[in-house]
Amino acid sequence: MSSRKIELFVPAITPFTEDLSVDTDRFVAHAKALIANGAHGLAPFGTTSEANSLTVAERKAALEALVDSGIDPAQLIPGTGCCASADTIELSSHATALGCRGVLMLPPFFYKGVSDEGVFDAYAQVINAVGPDLRVYLYHIPQMSGVPITLTLIERLIAAFGDQIAGLKDSSGKWDNTAAVIAAFPQIATYSASESLIPENVAAGGAGCISASLNVNPTGIRALVEGLNGSDHVALHAQVSAVRSIFEGLPLIPAIKAAVAAQNDDPGFARVRPPFTKLGRAHTDAISEAVRVAGEQTSR
Amino acid sequence: MSSRKIELFVPAITPFTEDLSVDTDRFVAHAKALIANGAHGLAPFGTTSEANSLTVAERKAALEALVDSGIDPAQLIPGTGCCASADTIELSSHATALGCRGVLMLPPFFYKGVSDEGVFDAYAQVINAVGPDLRVYLYHIPQMSGVPITLTLIERLIAAFGDQIAGLKDSSGKWDNTAAVIAAFPQIATYSASESLIPENVAAGGAGCISASLNVNPTGIRALVEGLNGSDHVALHAQVSAVRSIFEGLPLIPAIKAAVAAQNDDPGFARVRPPFTKLGRAHTDAISEAVRVAGEQTSR
Repeated sequence: MSSRKIELFVPAITPFTEDLSVDTDRFVAHAKALIANGAHGLAPFGTTSEANSLTVAERKAALEALVDSGIDPAQLIPGTGCCASADTIELSSHATALGCRGVLMLPPFFYKGVSDEGVFDAYAQVINAVGPDLRVYLYHIPQMSGVPITLTLIERLIAAFGDQIAGLKDSSGKWDNTAAVIAAFPQIATYSASESLIPENVAAGGAGCISASLNVNPTGIRALVEGLNGSDHVALHAQVSAVRSIFEGLPLIPAIKAAVAAQNDDPGFARVRPPFTKLGRAHTDAISEAVRVAGEQTSR
Repeated sequence: MSSRKIELFVPAITPFTEDLSVDTDRFVAHAKALIANGAHGLAPFGTTSEANSLTVAERKAALEALVDSGIDPAQLIPGTGCCASADTIELSSHATALGCRGVLMLPPFFYKGVSDEGVFDAYAQVINAVGPDLRVYLYHIPQMSGVPITLTLIERLIAAFGDQIAGLKDSSGKWDNTAAVIAAFPQIATYSASESLIPENVAAGGAGCISASLNVNPTGIRALVEGLNGSDHVALHAQVSAVRSIFEGLPLIPAIKAAVAAQNDDPGFARVRPPFTKLGRAHTDAISEAVRVAGEQTSR
């Protein structure tokens, strides 16, 4: 068992107004509620945040709104990885200048079948351009990006950039891969992408999780983390699993947004940008009911 | 046999300077040479162009440079599809205002497993925002985008937007798919992504090709198109196949750039942005020799 601090970072959803602009008011309100309810910090502009449907300017403005609202930048690990390195550099420089703890960085993800050397070059280009204050959390999500963060690549990046390589989020869903990263690189903070893997992650020496469900269940997941070795860990795990099951079989991002809308009794949170579509009425109603039932167990 | 005009559009490479900025001088020079040597037009900012490694501002500036150089905008079908619809709208509006024939539009490509309805919404959002002058060529390249352009989607887009849906580039490499698109939607211009499929494409009623090899062999491919029904079509086909074989087994984009560098006796054309890496010396030498041999058959 490692003595590493276990933390929960939320890939916060990005609410939209009726005309599908970024809804800064709801974004900030949701972010503050997440931290008040148990999250250690936020990883905004991740996959769940529909970050890849936002422009560079929108991402910068929304990040500034979080910081202006009083959230400590040390609690923020915004996603900054774009297809074009110049965009990644702009976002990463901006986040670093704001004092963010680090950035969660996708590799360039349009071109597939590229070499580790090419992906290394892409990360190196960004790190060299942003400078020594940048801390990078590598983002491994091959089912979306098509570009894996391999052990070889991590090793090479750490050899070149030392503690500027601060961590990794493993969204592959493959525990064997997460375990291999933690075992090979204990000096970096390795996060699982599902709270279902928190026990394994913590036992192996990982750093916690960055999970979509945290948008809906920060209190329950925080309780699980705090009570992993306690007598009621089975009940805590059951609560977390019950909330996660709400989203099974549904498009994850629209479902998470529908659940946040239900929790806040505010359908405005449910809007999504294309290529996502809003859930149909039946699914929305089912989510609302499930959220109500879960809420009787865990307050938000 | 259709009476449709058969055309060749080049997904022109984007040369870079030593600091990896867009090399506008080489870009324009190459573009003008392609048109002088047999291409009907250009589809700049496609996959081969490393478009997804360029920022929105870089793409706009480079397109303006082409138009300012005297290339007729009616010969240009620039790629404009980005992850974020607002970026796609900005590029598509810009191209339309410049008088471009149309735009080659990727669907939003980060999120996978999205519905046809969601992809329709994404295209509809852009078309509605840009307005009635926009002409869209749909870009089907599922091996990179992960988001296919299905027959159902095409049908729905044509039903909603009529002749604003002007065509499709099929980069899937699956002739059966191209044939199905041509058969179902004879009113749009369907391009193959390889000159090897020109005979089938033309016979079925397609519109020609938009192929990476056109960067290297516009004269030969144009001769093939013009001579499809002539007595020397076998020799024309052999020349085109010989040039294409230069790139087999190599990373396509660095190899195409190396070949253009060899043809121009200018290594500056060979630079690539990460995540691509320049070819090693042995491959570069082999390409130079192959280009020299091919050049003895076909002048550029």
